[in-house]
Amino acid sequence: MTSVSIIGGSGYGGGELLRLLLNHPNVEIKQVTSRSHLGEYVYQVHPNLRKRTQLKFSDPAALESVDILFLAQPHGQAQHNIEQYAKLAPKIIDLAADFRLRNADFYEQWYGEKHVAPEWLSKFVYGLPELHREELKTANYVSGVGCNATASNFALLPLVKADLIDLSAPVIIEIKVGSSEGGAEGNSGSLHAERANVIRTFSAFGHRHTAEVIQEMGVKDISLTMTAVDLVRGVLATVHAKVKQGVATKDLWKAYRAVANENPFVRVVKEQRGIYRVPEPKILAGSNYADLGFELDESNGHIVSMCAIDNLMKGASGSAVQCMNLMMEWDEMLGLEFMGLHPI
Amino acid sequence: MTSVSIIGGSGYGGGELLRLLLNHPNVEIKQVTSRSHLGEYVYQVHPNLRKRTQLKFSDPAALESVDILFLAQPHGQAQHNIEQYAKLAPKIIDLAADFRLRNADFYEQWYGEKHVAPEWLSKFVYGLPELHREELKTANYVSGVGCNATASNFALLPLVKADLIDLSAPVIIEIKVGSSEGGAEGNSGSLHAERANVIRTFSAFGHRHTAEVIQEMGVKDISLTMTAVDLVRGVLATVHAKVKQGVATKDLWKAYRAVANENPFVRVVKEQRGIYRVPEPKILAGSNYADLGFELDESNGHIVSMCAIDNLMKGASGSAVQCMNLMMEWDEMLGLEFMGLHPI
Amino acid sequence: MTSVSIIGGSGYGGGELLRLLLNHPNVEIKQVTSRSHLGEYVYQVHPNLRKRTQLKFSDPAALESVDILFLAQPHGQAQHNIEQYAKLAPKIIDLAADFRLRNADFYEQWYGEKHVAPEWLSKFVYGLPELHREELKTANYVSGVGCNATASNFALLPLVKADLIDLSAPVIIEIKVGSSEGGAEGNSGSLHAERANVIRTFSAFGHRHTAEVIQEMGVKDISLTMTAVDLVRGVLATVHAKVKQGVATKDLWKAYRAVANENPFVRVVKEQRGIYRVPEPKILAGSNYADLGFELDESNGHIVSMCAIDNLMKGASGSAVQCMNLMMEWDEMLGLEFMGLHPI
Amino acid sequence: MTSVSIIGGSGYGGGELLRLLLNHPNVEIKQVTSRSHLGEYVYQVHPNLRKRTQLKFSDPAALESVDILFLAQPHGQAQHNIEQYAKLAPKIIDLAADFRLRNADFYEQWYGEKHVAPEWLSKFVYGLPELHREELKTANYVSGVGCNATASNFALLPLVKADLIDLSAPVIIEIKVGSSEGGAEGNSGSLHAERANVIRTFSAFGHRHTAEVIQEMGVKDISLTMTAVDLVRGVLATVHAKVKQGVATKDLWKAYRAVANENPFVRVVKEQRGIYRVPEPKILAGSNYADLGFELDESNGHIVSMCAIDNLMKGASGSAVQCMNLMMEWDEMLGLEFMGLHPI
Repeated sequence: MTSVSIIGGSGYGGGELLRLLLNHPNVEIKQVTSRSHLGEYVYQVHPNLRKRTQLKFSDPAALESVDILFLAQPHGQAQHNIEQYAKLAPKIIDLAADFRLRNADFYEQWYGEKHVAPEWLSKFVYGLPELHREELKTANYVSGVGCNATASNFALLPLVKADLIDLSAPVIIEIKVGSSEGGAEGNSGSLHAERANVIRTFSAFGHRHTAEVIQEMGVKDISLTMTAVDLVRGVLATVHAKVKQGVATKDLWKAYRAVANENPFVRVVKEQRGIYRVPEPKILAGSNYADLGFELDESNGHIVSMCAIDNLMKGASGSAVQCMNLMMEWDEMLGLEFMGLHPI
Repeated sequence: MTSVSIIGGSGYGGGELLRLLLNHPNVEIKQVTSRSHLGEYVYQVHPNLRKRTQLKFSDPAALESVDILFLAQPHGQAQHNIEQYAKLAPKIIDLAADFRLRNADFYEQWYGEKHVAPEWLSKFVYGLPELHREELKTANYVSGVGCNATASNFALLPLVKADLIDLSAPVIIEIKVGSSEGGAEGNSGSLHAERANVIRTFSAFGHRHTAEVIQEMGVKDISLTMTAVDLVRGVLATVHAKVKQGVATKDLWKAYRAVANENPFVRVVKEQRGIYRVPEPKILAGSNYADLGFELDESNGHIVSMCAIDNLMKGASGSAVQCMNLMMEWDEMLGLEFMGLHPI
Repeated sequence: MTSVSIIGGSGYGGGELLRLLLNHPNVEIKQVTSRSHLGEYVYQVHPNLRKRTQLKFSDPAALESVDILFLAQPHGQAQHNIEQYAKLAPKIIDLAADFRLRNADFYEQWYGEKHVAPEWLSKFVYGLPELHREELKTANYVSGVGCNATASNFALLPLVKADLIDLSAPVIIEIKVGSSEGGAEGNSGSLHAERANVIRTFSAFGHRHTAEVIQEMGVKDISLTMTAVDLVRGVLATVHAKVKQGVATKDLWKAYRAVANENPFVRVVKEQRGIYRVPEPKILAGSNYADLGFELDESNGHIVSMCAIDNLMKGASGSAVQCMNLMMEWDEMLGLEFMGLHPI
Repeated sequence: MTSVSIIGGSGYGGGELLRLLLNHPNVEIKQVTSRSHLGEYVYQVHPNLRKRTQLKFSDPAALESVDILFLAQPHGQAQHNIEQYAKLAPKIIDLAADFRLRNADFYEQWYGEKHVAPEWLSKFVYGLPELHREELKTANYVSGVGCNATASNFALLPLVKADLIDLSAPVIIEIKVGSSEGGAEGNSGSLHAERANVIRTFSAFGHRHTAEVIQEMGVKDISLTMTAVDLVRGVLATVHAKVKQGVATKDLWKAYRAVANENPFVRVVKEQRGIYRVPEPKILAGSNYADLGFELDESNGHIVSMCAIDNLMKGASGSAVQCMNLMMEWDEMLGLEFMGLHPI
């Protein structure tokens, strides 16, 4: 059995990691840390884990050596402690934003502060298997992915890979998100009475995840518009772009199907009948799928490309476990078999 | 114009009072206080009031004299300052729990602390017009009502008034509530991601509002079981009791209709067809109605009596304004005409 | 008193009209028709109206003469009967799409069928007061407005009126809508278990309301992308466009404020603090406001302009009553005073 | 591999069975029937199954022999065809209500019609493993369970098993349910715009599932009050009863823990801190757990006992698969490992 520990296990990303790792046949969880819940059973914070583990939250100051260390802390902490963490484990998978960008200046531009461990940026591989599968197989340090960036990157991937859109033209991405994105801490606007029933555009552009889309997709003129809606888990990214001259619906089918065929967790959803004709996040809760769809207005070349994911799974902990599977040369889908629910 | 001020205007009860009083033809709002939002426009906290008032939150230490003073503070503050408030206004309407109970020992029993102004308890009239209409017409000091107590009292009222149940037998009241009951401050369990989709029985018995049902209805063996459900505004109280020997459905119809006929804001909802056959809080959002319904199992005398209200209206600010109308000898429905919405 | 009747009163638009007209000081409702609910009390279908009216649904074949006739039928019926309706009333206000477009060819292009009463198209005024206030004052025939078109038109209005965007460049409008848009009939995808928690892009482009935006705003290259979210009432339209060279945030403030100053039901929402910084439909339920907001990326001229409305109010019945007020030379806000609720 | 087929696979119970059986290591699905979706891929109706199976819905008239036949039809069909089904498979598990009651008169009393295959009633075992584990190990015919009955039976089980309540005294059960109970067909009240935000007591007493509680628990004077709330999956049953003289909280702890210790899918939830102190259905979506909790008012012997389940899992398809595991002498938890999600 491979031993793993999680730093920061009381947040939503940490809880989802716990759920996945407890169910994973090849790993054993050694420690899960939490300062605020020190000494409590993990099931007192994550009630779905009751009767599945007797683990308690331990002190981050008392970490022991382990095969793989998962970092599930709030952004900005890992870069301060990365040297110490590297002594504890030969392999590290970070869920936060600390090591997602390859360039320290680019980091400073989007995060408004200098990176404190810039020499580590080049050691990390961006943790989206569908973009970096081969590199991940030999990686020791893997970054997390931004959930909104992930939905955006998937909606762009078939278009960029098959060279169907002009990357210098403006790309507008409208993203609708559930409340779990806000994390377990929340703020006054996260109160149920204020957050229920919302359609709240909390960021018109400038969201930090934009940087990951620029880095990974090579688009230049891009904006992410973030709108909170009444849902707990899920993200839908809708890309608006212009296809290159002559691109037709059949070319798009080919491009989207190619991506789905190469990646076990990618599906194309484009039906002519039934209730579920387009990608929808609600049926993905708990699953690691990225569902892609598109619609082309052949009269003017306007393409609407969509990607739905569970922000805590493909957009965070699910991709992290998938990365671990690749790093360990295990079956890529191991421990990630849950299909999602219908209805829900 | 009658001048009114509100102490504690940034909470949900205070916001609802503001909405009602801004729309009331006979009053003028002089001051609205808030320590935490001092100097802000009230519409920055209560966004529905934008373009309807330029009022700003003022300092509670700088209150001026006024005809009627509304107290919309958290429980436990009014009893400390009541002497001072009484010097500012000849009439006071309190929304909190400080002056709801008539007996200081009974208060201590349910609130776990001594009342600091017990001599004031007898000066207040319990502010539910349907129970104390005549007293309210001459009252200077009126207490608020607990929202859960109000739904319970209405569900019991026709039965108690027509002497149809045995008050010494156990009465079980199951109450389902929306999230606005928790107030604008909330707690970790009020976060949308934790509070959405809940059916959470947060109190099996012992809720403080029970005391108001005992006081007003004279029942002895009673329990209120509180369950939070996914809704912002609304309460449904379901009373389970045994009718006296020989009581039949027609007696109940008579008793419920009598209460509805005597009270402009009470309706009986008991239909054989359509979607809305029973009292439902959702269509009451913003309205001052109390909708009553019942079902009698004639085989064993088990009666299920229901009352739906908007907890912020009939269960708080709506009743307070209705009390003001009575105290001022105005039309009881003035400023409370809003019918509620369908669908919503 | 002015007498009014409603044809098609059992749908959501008809129910909302009933609520508004029952509360309107200058009108008396004579008849409300419904074939499917013939003979039932209107409050059996619209439960919020209980104890406010004893009206019953009457037979559309037995309509009597009246001062103003409101048509609240499904699309496609009014054009077949308009001659007959015109004999019953000197003034007609239609809520459906039959008479929204001024040009019969344009109608056929977007609705896929020939208009059966094309000679009537020029007699109708498009029923959005903020666009046609002066014409409405002398109009006898007024069309309804599409709710999605209305949100889009408002989001574009300050930009078009102040000539701040290039109308020949592509305009992308992302619209998020609640379930009441689907109407009281619904379909299998409207079932709660399938419709709850959705983020469902049911139309990427080609929505019929697009025609009203083209007609009223003069934009050429425009697409409306429709996404259903978990909410009953409300629409948010988000326009993505490019401002003309040199346009800055201060120019936008001026343009938006101008529109708000000229129109009693338009507000600008753009706050730096608090929970409600941008337009949000949830606090507009039942109110007739259109809330506008914007954000300009000065680095590339990308403007995000937003409009939130209640689809059944400003997007349907509220605007219809506002039109009536103008046609009758009454105060434009009469009967439309409800402010909306917070929280909800 | 054991071969299984499902009759009636397009409903919610059938879809959940499909999800579980596709994930089950010991079975192979041979056929899934649906008249209304004949020839469609099952993932077109149950979108979570996309990329997991290429099964299509087949004709119920073309059923082939199989090891185990699951019946997931609407109530009332299986009893007409049971002879035919018995020829197709040596083992049958029915999800509907046709064979839940052991007595034909009792069936007629609660279902208002004569049973058409009364001789089969005694051949079926009631399919709740926690009540009939030993019988199930040798059973060939197993009935389904009512979801509301199951939640009620679990809330009563520790009390009845340890003889802590008087079975002749009245027992009141308040049940709150999500919309998936209504099935994939729905009715006008199931439309999202009408069903969202509800607290709707659609049945005060007389619900058919009551019969299963009487049969399995031996209680005499019992009523189930059914209230629909805004949730898709989940049931919470709250039992109100009186404990026998002298029963204290420690006796209850012992009784509840005993049931949890004997049954892998039963948990006791009774915490003093944290958000999740009581059983809540939302974290059970997709899991097979029954979470139990209680609160005793020692002053009057009033016990509030709660059980939360996912109505489509422990209340239907999950228990059916658990029964299959027992009938086949496999590990009882096989294929039922999913833990549920937090948050959701």
